[in-house]
Amino acid sequence: MMKTRGCCASICQCFFEYSTPKILVIRSFKVGTLNRITQALVIAYVIGYVCVLNKGYQDMDAVLSSVTTKVKGIALTNTSDLGLRIWDVADYVIPPQEENSFFVLTNLLITLNQTQSHCPEVPKTGFDCTSDRDCKAGSRDTRGNGVQTGKCVKYSAVDKTCEVLAWCPLELDKEPPNPPMLADAENFTVLIKNSIRYPKFNFNKRNILPYVNKTYLEQCVFNRITDPDCPIFRLKDMVTEANEDFQTMAVHGGVMGVQIRWECDLDMPSSWCVPRYTFRRLDNKDPVNNVAPGYNFRFAKYYKNGNNEETRTLIKGFGIRFDVMVFGQAGKFNIVPTLLNVGAGLALLGLVTVVCDWIVLTCMTKKNIYNEEKYSYVDDFQLLSNETP
Amino acid sequence: MMKTRGCCASICQCFFEYSTPKILVIRSFKVGTLNRITQALVIAYVIGYVCVLNKGYQDMDAVLSSVTTKVKGIALTNTSDLGLRIWDVADYVIPPQEENSFFVLTNLLITLNQTQSHCPEVPKTGFDCTSDRDCKAGSRDTRGNGVQTGKCVKYSAVDKTCEVLAWCPLELDKEPPNPPMLADAENFTVLIKNSIRYPKFNFNKRNILPYVNKTYLEQCVFNRITDPDCPIFRLKDMVTEANEDFQTMAVHGGVMGVQIRWECDLDMPSSWCVPRYTFRRLDNKDPVNNVAPGYNFRFAKYYKNGNNEETRTLIKGFGIRFDVMVFGQAGKFNIVPTLLNVGAGLALLGLVTVVCDWIVLTCMTKKNIYNEEKYSYVDDFQLLSNETP
Amino acid sequence: MMKTRGCCASICQCFFEYSTPKILVIRSFKVGTLNRITQALVIAYVIGYVCVLNKGYQDMDAVLSSVTTKVKGIALTNTSDLGLRIWDVADYVIPPQEENSFFVLTNLLITLNQTQSHCPEVPKTGFDCTSDRDCKAGSRDTRGNGVQTGKCVKYSAVDKTCEVLAWCPLELDKEPPNPPMLADAENFTVLIKNSIRYPKFNFNKRNILPYVNKTYLEQCVFNRITDPDCPIFRLKDMVTEANEDFQTMAVHGGVMGVQIRWECDLDMPSSWCVPRYTFRRLDNKDPVNNVAPGYNFRFAKYYKNGNNEETRTLIKGFGIRFDVMVFGQAGKFNIVPTLLNVGAGLALLGLVTVVCDWIVLTCMTKKNIYNEEKYSYVDDFQLLSNETP
Repeated sequence: MMKTRGCCASICQCFFEYSTPKILVIRSFKVGTLNRITQALVIAYVIGYVCVLNKGYQDMDAVLSSVTTKVKGIALTNTSDLGLRIWDVADYVIPPQEENSFFVLTNLLITLNQTQSHCPEVPKTGFDCTSDRDCKAGSRDTRGNGVQTGKCVKYSAVDKTCEVLAWCPLELDKEPPNPPMLADAENFTVLIKNSIRYPKFNFNKRNILPYVNKTYLEQCVFNRITDPDCPIFRLKDMVTEANEDFQTMAVHGGVMGVQIRWECDLDMPSSWCVPRYTFRRLDNKDPVNNVAPGYNFRFAKYYKNGNNEETRTLIKGFGIRFDVMVFGQAGKFNIVPTLLNVGAGLALLGLVTVVCDWIVLTCMTKKNIYNEEKYSYVDDFQLLSNETP
Repeated sequence: MMKTRGCCASICQCFFEYSTPKILVIRSFKVGTLNRITQALVIAYVIGYVCVLNKGYQDMDAVLSSVTTKVKGIALTNTSDLGLRIWDVADYVIPPQEENSFFVLTNLLITLNQTQSHCPEVPKTGFDCTSDRDCKAGSRDTRGNGVQTGKCVKYSAVDKTCEVLAWCPLELDKEPPNPPMLADAENFTVLIKNSIRYPKFNFNKRNILPYVNKTYLEQCVFNRITDPDCPIFRLKDMVTEANEDFQTMAVHGGVMGVQIRWECDLDMPSSWCVPRYTFRRLDNKDPVNNVAPGYNFRFAKYYKNGNNEETRTLIKGFGIRFDVMVFGQAGKFNIVPTLLNVGAGLALLGLVTVVCDWIVLTCMTKKNIYNEEKYSYVDDFQLLSNETP
Repeated sequence: MMKTRGCCASICQCFFEYSTPKILVIRSFKVGTLNRITQALVIAYVIGYVCVLNKGYQDMDAVLSSVTTKVKGIALTNTSDLGLRIWDVADYVIPPQEENSFFVLTNLLITLNQTQSHCPEVPKTGFDCTSDRDCKAGSRDTRGNGVQTGKCVKYSAVDKTCEVLAWCPLELDKEPPNPPMLADAENFTVLIKNSIRYPKFNFNKRNILPYVNKTYLEQCVFNRITDPDCPIFRLKDMVTEANEDFQTMAVHGGVMGVQIRWECDLDMPSSWCVPRYTFRRLDNKDPVNNVAPGYNFRFAKYYKNGNNEETRTLIKGFGIRFDVMVFGQAGKFNIVPTLLNVGAGLALLGLVTVVCDWIVLTCMTKKNIYNEEKYSYVDDFQLLSNETP
């Protein structure tokens, strides 16, 4: 009975104990100043960098985004093949819709009225021949345009090449026109509609800001100084902002990044959360190492002629692909990251003691006094006890 | 020799030293209780929030995903232009395949038999004219449909507008039909196949769960209550879950988010790791600020007539784009984040001492006794020494 | 005056104070060894894992990427429907351009000359009939191909099915050809151009490395051993690297992941930052649970015949979609994460004291001596004071 009571009491006693480290306070100009300077540095770092710059007291969320685009504009071309021809959005945006991207045709090589038939290959190393023996029936070369029939036929007055089964006439391997055929594309405009959401904070916004009305939207064009909130962009302006020349880029095509940045401090009024647009060329146009420059792809329009035979128009389209990249973070005050950062700050303050202790106990003239006061010793050595002071 | 031995011994001695702070234990009801409550709070926070809710003992990995979709369904339209007409998947899904997205046409404005020719502009401010002098040859306006020829011609019995070179006849600038032409689209179904991978844990899964067999898959439709694991979704159900009306949305089009969330605790059986589907409208349909609502784009089908002239059918297609968004995290026990969180917890426990010390040494009645016991002083002042107690 | 001076002096005095914990040093073989071993473990963990493996002293940035692809190759097919036919890039890449993905047609079921007209449904449960009463006019089934007219007509000599308004003739519901029609696709090559950017470090690079010249690029094909830097990939090689058989995969189609990994340590020369290519099949081909395998979609080519009636060629295309996934991180020395990790390391060193204290004060034979030296007591109990020793 007595024992149980004693045990119970000792648990109680233990529960009501509070342990706190014993502290040696050193009063000294030098040491105190050193201490305060080090503390001030750590506190300035924690408050300045972690809290103010990195907003360590905020919970963060990444942006969810949805983008739709609509290009407008008319281009006029005049070539011997096609005559005078108008190009509208259904002609030059390929494919007609994509998720976060749109492609505008700016230049093209067109091969009309191709049919599945036989014709001589384009002269190139490996396809030249003098007799049928130089051509292997059934051979298909990735650099070629079709399957060889095994015959050697006249390509021109001088050249003979292997005959192929292919979409004939073959596309000529030539440089794209310069200036580009759809030079007018520089004046096309694109309306970029972007809705964003920060799911953690249930915050939605879109890049057509509340004060933008239909009248403004019908006539505005983005301009960094005069119209920074207009979501309609002139293609040339975008390319110019990326320090590129539109007409040069249009010849071989390329890839442009349209970056929409939503950095939102949701502790501030939500109207301060606005998109920032920047533009950058994404593909490399390194002039030194100019391998396979630009952006182009081949596509075809298929027709049937009177005899129910399939013909096609092959287009090697050069153009600019605009990738719309939406990124950003929203922050809002939250107790969890605040505690975490306060904790990390206190941990760093622990470093102050380490640094000051080292200086105080090794460099100061009175280090022996400090040492004596700070440290007590329990000695447990038999072997070395005779050598301890 | 003696000196080396002494030096060696002192290093040895130093190596076998163990430093531990000297502790003052205060036995008191008040202080002890305060201490234990603060400790309990911190421990509850660390265990409750960091370990249980945030699973701080787990290593996390983000999902890699691959999505394919397949829409099924037939729609019937009956218009004066096209007569009775069937629309199947090859007609209404444009483009036929995309990476994480699919578009279903729900409404359209069609302009048949366009050719490159001359016709009067659609009446609009800037295109009206009374004589040829009002029209400028070669002028191309982004709001217009072609390049002006400089002539002023009759558009209707009353209106005269500038003539343009364009795809004629021009598309009429009118509202889309209401009810939408492909109202049947609400009954279309889509099979969404989604394979995910957590590369860090070499864990693969797909949204067609192991128990789902071919028979079930041929007749099931997703229903949050009765068929929550069926990967086949009726379009109307998806829109309804997002609190939208399909027929209203179908008129002007829009963008829907199909969110597939894979939150997996891989310390649990892998069969607990199942996808959760949610649906949300991504574009803004704010009725107050209704600028450029919905989602539409123009595309064309190209034909050649008997004279080898190109004609096209221009379609302004309104419809719903479904963006499939796959996200989620998997967690699995790992010693590294566990140690990290235990460390952070201990650091926070350090806060307890700071808080309790402050209360004990400033607010308690016996604070002088505690102060005397906790602090020792080494005084180093010459200047102020006469003022210290 | 005297008071102000006293107050001022006491603030000064406080400012120049430096607090450092009083330390008990235990000199003992056992305790010292234990202490050093624990410290060594923690330090080894911090340096080895956090600094060397995880590069905790570096600031990290995620990759921004832009991908363009260009497929090359010719396939030959010979079928009763189409005769001998050549397929080139404009024929088999659908759609002609996508953002981070490309699709190569490898197999197809073709239905020629469809027109909007009436024809009997394909025999299937639900569509069979014996008289008009079995068919419901206007009924549209998601499994069917059109809208029923209400008539029951002959499908073949034996079968009668409900008549539908649809694109007739209907597509036959049959398995895709095996071997695949475009078996030649295995020799197609694709040039993948990938430009990356680490915005935080203003670092750009592309996967066509500086030393790669035009001549090399015209003839090279990626090979993990001989040509690991060639950005041109043979389709079959990619599929083989993922441990799949191209011809088998080509029959029903599938989804392949082309993973480009840019792990860059920017403290090292930038030429060490090179892409690593890996290939993985993304869709599931689990043979046990083989529901809806492969990847296919339907698309159509539209024609107009002599009577201005629209006809189309419906293609159910099976093929391989290649999703190019670019990921990776770049790290560069930065003082902020270094401080953070040093701090975290020191916090973990605090654990050493906790562990050692517990062992020293409970397990050692001389624990009473240590206890006495380490702890001082301030007793504050009235109730239990008679029971304390």
